[in-house]
Parts: sequence; C-alpha cells; structure tokens
Amino acid sequence: MTYSLTVRDHMMIAHSLAGEAFGPAQRLHGATYVVDATFRAAELGDDGVVVDIGRASEVLRGILSPVSYRNLDDEPEFAGVNTTTERLCGVIAEKLVAAARDGSLGDAPLTGIVVTLRESHIAWASFEVEL
Amino acid sequence: MTYSLTVRDHMMIAHSLAGEAFGPAQRLHGATYVVDATFRAAELGDDGVVVDIGRASEVLRGILSPVSYRNLDDEPEFAGVNTTTERLCGVIAEKLVAAARDGSLGDAPLTGIVVTLRESHIAWASFEVEL
Amino acid sequence: MTYSLTVRDHMMIAHSLAGEAFGPAQRLHGATYVVDATFRAAELGDDGVVVDIGRASEVLRGILSPVSYRNLDDEPEFAGVNTTTERLCGVIAEKLVAAARDGSLGDAPLTGIVVTLRESHIAWASFEVEL
Amino acid sequence: MTYSLTVRDHMMIAHSLAGEAFGPAQRLHGATYVVDATFRAAELGDDGVVVDIGRASEVLRGILSPVSYRNLDDEPEFAGVNTTTERLCGVIAEKLVAAARDGSLGDAPLTGIVVTLRESHIAWASFEVEL
Amino acid sequence: MTYSLTVRDHMMIAHSLAGEAFGPAQRLHGATYVVDATFRAAELGDDGVVVDIGRASEVLRGILSPVSYRNLDDEPEFAGVNTTTERLCGVIAEKLVAAARDGSLGDAPLTGIVVTLRESHIAWASFEVEL
Amino acid sequence: MTYSLTVRDHMMIAHSLAGEAFGPAQRLHGATYVVDATFRAAELGDDGVVVDIGRASEVLRGILSPVSYRNLDDEPEFAGVNTTTERLCGVIAEKLVAAARDGSLGDAPLTGIVVTLRESHIAWASFEVEL
Repeated sequence: MTYSLTVRDHMMIAHSLAGEAFGPAQRLHGATYVVDATFRAAELGDDGVVVDIGRASEVLRGILSPVSYRNLDDEPEFAGVNTTTERLCGVIAEKLVAAARDGSLGDAPLTGIVVTLRESHIAWASFEVEL
Repeated sequence: MTYSLTVRDHMMIAHSLAGEAFGPAQRLHGATYVVDATFRAAELGDDGVVVDIGRASEVLRGILSPVSYRNLDDEPEFAGVNTTTERLCGVIAEKLVAAARDGSLGDAPLTGIVVTLRESHIAWASFEVEL
Repeated sequence: MTYSLTVRDHMMIAHSLAGEAFGPAQRLHGATYVVDATFRAAELGDDGVVVDIGRASEVLRGILSPVSYRNLDDEPEFAGVNTTTERLCGVIAEKLVAAARDGSLGDAPLTGIVVTLRESHIAWASFEVEL
Repeated sequence: MTYSLTVRDHMMIAHSLAGEAFGPAQRLHGATYVVDATFRAAELGDDGVVVDIGRASEVLRGILSPVSYRNLDDEPEFAGVNTTTERLCGVIAEKLVAAARDGSLGDAPLTGIVVTLRESHIAWASFEVEL
Repeated sequence: MTYSLTVRDHMMIAHSLAGEAFGPAQRLHGATYVVDATFRAAELGDDGVVVDIGRASEVLRGILSPVSYRNLDDEPEFAGVNTTTERLCGVIAEKLVAAARDGSLGDAPLTGIVVTLRESHIAWASFEVEL
Repeated sequence: MTYSLTVRDHMMIAHSLAGEAFGPAQRLHGATYVVDATFRAAELGDDGVVVDIGRASEVLRGILSPVSYRNLDDEPEFAGVNTTTERLCGVIAEKLVAAARDGSLGDAPLTGIVVTLRESHIAWASFEVEL
C-alpha cells in the first residue's frame, strides 16, 4: 500500500550537452522543464496527507529558484557535469530527499521520492529513489 | 511483467479540511477531482484485456456517483475524517478492490489497483494497493 | 493582426446551482476551475510583450484569491446570482478589464480579454470581451 | 534508484475486436494510439543519459511505422490475435526489448521498459517488463 | 461580448483517404477523434448558461454514436466523400446547428458553433460557423 | 464559416530578455517552445483539407530547424530584438505566411494563420494574421 502526492512547477534554463550523440544539442540552447515532484508514504500523517501541498510546493520552489533563469554551463554546481534531463531529475530528487530528512516535509514517514522533468510534449525523464 | 488498463472519470464535491496546515482550505470550498483508475494484471483475460474498458468505466462511475455533487462534510461515510485528496484515493481504491474481489471486473487475475485524483493542473495524489 | 498572451492559475470553490436543468448540481458541491486569462493587443508594448507574464499572473492571482477556498453561495458578491462556469468567466473578465483600464497591465494598448474556466477534463466555458 | 526516459509518438490503425464484451467495437473501427515508450536504468550511460532521445525516438518510429496506417485485421503478425490496447502495448514492448538486447539503444544497462498506449482522453493501457 | 461553453467526447472510426498527398493514409486505417463542441452566445439563458452541460453532452453523444466504431468508407452518408478531419468537423457542426435550430440546446440565442477534432497529440482540425 | 488545421512541433532555445520588467529573465536562460501552427480557410482544397498535415508539418519543421538548439542572442536575425514569446510567434507566423503565398501549402485559399508558442504549463502567447 502506497500513498503519493505530486506537485508541479517549472524552470527555464540554458545549457549545452557534451557528446556527439547530442547532435545540435551540443550547442548552447535551452529548455523549459515542467517539474513534477512526487512524495510517497505507506501511511498518511496526522492531517491525512502525505505532504501538505502548500509545503511541498514551497520546498520545490526553493530548490528550483536558484537554478531558474540561469545558464547551467556557468553554474559551479554543474561544473564538468552533463546537465541532461535525467541528471537534473537526480539532482532535484537528492535535494528533496535532504528536505525529507531534515523534517521540512512534515510528519508522514516518506518511503520514496520521484522527480519527473518534461522537456517537451514528446520527451521526459524521471528519477525515483527509495527512502 | 505487468499489464495495466486505466479509465478516467471525474467528480465535483464540496468539503473543508481540518488542520492549521491547510490554511484557507479549512473553509468550506470544493474541488473537481479527475479520477484515474488503473487495474493491473500479470496476464490478460480470455478477451485479451486486463479489464473491459466499458465495464471498468461503469464500475468506476458506480463508485463516484454516490459522492458526486455532494458536500462531503455532510456525508456519514466521511464523519470525523479529513477528506484529503490522498484519503479519497484510498477510499475509491478500496471500493475498486471490493469490485475486483466480487468478480465485477472480469476474469483476468488482478494484481493491483491504483487510483489517482487530480485536483488541479499542479497537484494530484495516488493510492496504490496490491491484490 | 493580433498578439495574445495567456497565463493560467486556478481556484477551488463550493457552490450550488439553482434550476432544475442542473439536476444533482443543485446540491451544494464544488469545483476546481483552472483559469486561463488571455490578453490581446494589435501591437506589442515597449518591452516586446502584450503583458508581462509576471504582472499578468499577479493581477490574475489578485482577482482569484478573494474567492478561492470559499463557498460562493455565501459571498455577498454573488447573492441571487447563479455562479455558473460561464458567469464566473464573465465576472473575472470584468475585473481584468478594470485592471487593463487602470494601467495595471502595462503599456501595450489591449484590444481584448478572454477568460476560460476549465471545470473538468470534459467541460469548460469562456467569456471574451473587446476593449 | 531508477532513472527513466520516455519518448512519445503515435500510430493510427483500423481493427476489430472479437468477443461479446466489446459490444460495438466488434465492428471494424479504428484508433489513434499515442505511444509512450519508457526506458529504465539504475545508472546513467557515459553521456549522462538512459537512452539518447533521438535514438529512442528513431527506434520507436521504426517499430510503429510498419503497422501505422494499416488494418491490423489483415496483418499476418496479428492473425488470430485480439489486438486490444493491452496486447499492442506488449507487442511494442517486446520489440523495444529486442532493440535493447541488440545494443540499438546505447550503453546504459537498461533494467526495464514500459509502453503506454493512450487510445482516447479517457482510456489507456500499459505493459511493463523487467530486463 | 461572447460567452462560450465546450464539452468533450470522442469517437473511434476506420477510414481511408483518397489522394496521393495522403501517402500511407490512402490505406484503410483509423483514428480516435477527441471531439470538442463549442457553443457561443452573446448573452446567457435563464439559468445563466450558454447551454446546459448535460444537455450539450447528450446532443453531442447522439451525433457521435451513429458513426462511432464504424468504417466510414462503408457509410452511405460519406459515399464519395473524403472523410478528412476537417470535413468531419464540418459534418458534426452541421448536426449541432440543426440541434440548435430545433431548440434541443435550450433558450440562449446561440451565435456560433465550433467543432474541433483532435486526431493525435500533434494534429487537429476545426470548423466554425456563425448562426 | 471557417475551417482550420493545426500541427504541433517544438524548439529549444537559449536567450535573454532586455528590460527591468523581466526580472531574472534578463539573465541568459532558455525555453522549450511547443509550437502550434494553425491554418484557416473558408473552404477546403481538392483533397478535402485546409492543408495536408504532412506538408504543414514539414513547412513548420523547416522554419523551426534553423533556430532550434541555438542561443537567439547570437542570431543575426534577432539582433537588437527582444525575443519574447509574442515576438517569436510573429516571426514564425510571417514565415508561414510567406510559405502560404509561394504555394508551399497547397491549393486551399488560406484566410488566416495563427501561431501559438507554449513556454510552460502556465504561460503561452499567440500571433494571428489574416491573409
């Protein structure tokens, strides 16, 4: 038995991708990532929720804001890293995991987190981690 | 190996949520829940389906109708319960489980049911149960 | 030649509808309205936009907040009025027109406003007005 | 920990379904299937991806093209088979598994594949297989 | 000033298209058409609606049912006609116009009807007519 | 009476926007634009279409390719221009108008073109021109 709660937000960034397989995406370009953050729990917290939607949205916004409207190629955090959609899912998920561990997300014992980044109407990636 | 079949319907209800964390949602307000019911099976039934779409839709409609266009705060079924999106997922899923057990959903041996309620374009919840 | 800019937000309300045609929707129930506000202009303002997206979003939020998480049956503003989806589109559009007229929406000369409220995945209404 | 990458395409086919449960769908009719192919991996390949989006899209296109714009009732591949949405998910997934095994999908060790076919705004099916 | 109300339904059909430009779509194939029917009025009817959603949905269903789950190539109604998405929009719109004229759609004086058929996630057509 | 046909594609670009109103979007960032190109005609061409979907898709692709996966700040075409979503709609629409005028879009006499760019799930812009 698993409950989950998902909130959606987005970020708009520039970046380039290293590797011949990326073809034209090796050039500096950009993306809107529509970001879905999913929180899972085997049972609900005192209020009957996995995570309060308002709180989840704020935590997600706090993670996306520092990288929003930026060129990821210039961000020290991503030095030497290919900021593929998959990897950005992983980075955001790790930060949500940290928020879950420091208690920012409420009293329900979370069992997993999934982050999905939709880069267009025809391609998206996810990262899923158990807690 | 898992096959799944999902049908979508919706319900429109009023309710209020108890708990300071809900902020303005403590007031009487309402929601449209777009409801996705997913049925899982390791193998297909005689007709080559997990559940017939028409049958699945009818069973879901039969579960949503009694609570549709109602104020959940006044429904005996929900007395003393915070009708959060997560909890409503659980309630609907339990009724689908009962339908699966009494044979209303056909001959494929179902292995799981997932119910997702989308409350807006930026928030949704799910409940998943193995059978 | 017409440019337009649309921003999306939502509100969650309770209400009931008077009139036999509404069937079960005569009971107190509720809805999530996903609200799209469209601004039209024949030419762009100095920054190259119809309306700044941030400003448009704030103005729309300012209009939706006072009615969000409320029972519209109890709101003096809607006394004696059937708060159908169509009528709510009209009410929100009028407030956007007022914002356009008092200069809250920037320097592009707006020629029209459209408000769309999506009440489910299978029904929505709009109100369109020329300025 | 699981990464995933999904690409979307579609196919338009005619077919009929055998079995009384299908009601009017026993007649020759048709469907647009919007096809989502998901690839899963526990770790990313050298380029930082599960599968290159371009490559994944080409492989999926190569699988959908031979059955697109066809009457499945006349295709030898489906002789004696009810081409339900579930079964078509399985058929497409098997071909993606073959592509994964022959190395067409790159260097990340794939752990699973999911294929989802959306046949309308209110019904879809999936097939998920571990590798 | 224009109010509008839209309801969504769908139909699944087989057909073929005559003309070299259609390439593989000259073969017998099929489509799911997600159908949006929009009704326009300059003012609302007595109940505060353009058209009652339930009534609009029933009228649309009544128009789609006779052609649903059929091979349009065999339907006398479409003999000698290329059943392109555009043309099907026109055919459905004409039937909605007839329903508007015979009073099936209520007391608001309708000023226009729009029918949109979405044939995939990347292509759709519309037909719009003033009344 | 107006028929229309829409095809969808997308482009991913980097750019920055000049003007204090843009706040953080003054920095180099990027966007995925999901692009909808709509063609309008009062009557259908010989094949029963406004524009052949395949042809419309190719023409749109031919317009989006040269700017896809690029930093618009470095493109001579956009020197001194704020590449807002609205303005990019206008630029793409003008190129579609040119294609319509040189006969690339078939034999139906087009009466209008609309281009919509969706930059996120909560904001989009359009440009509409009569022919």
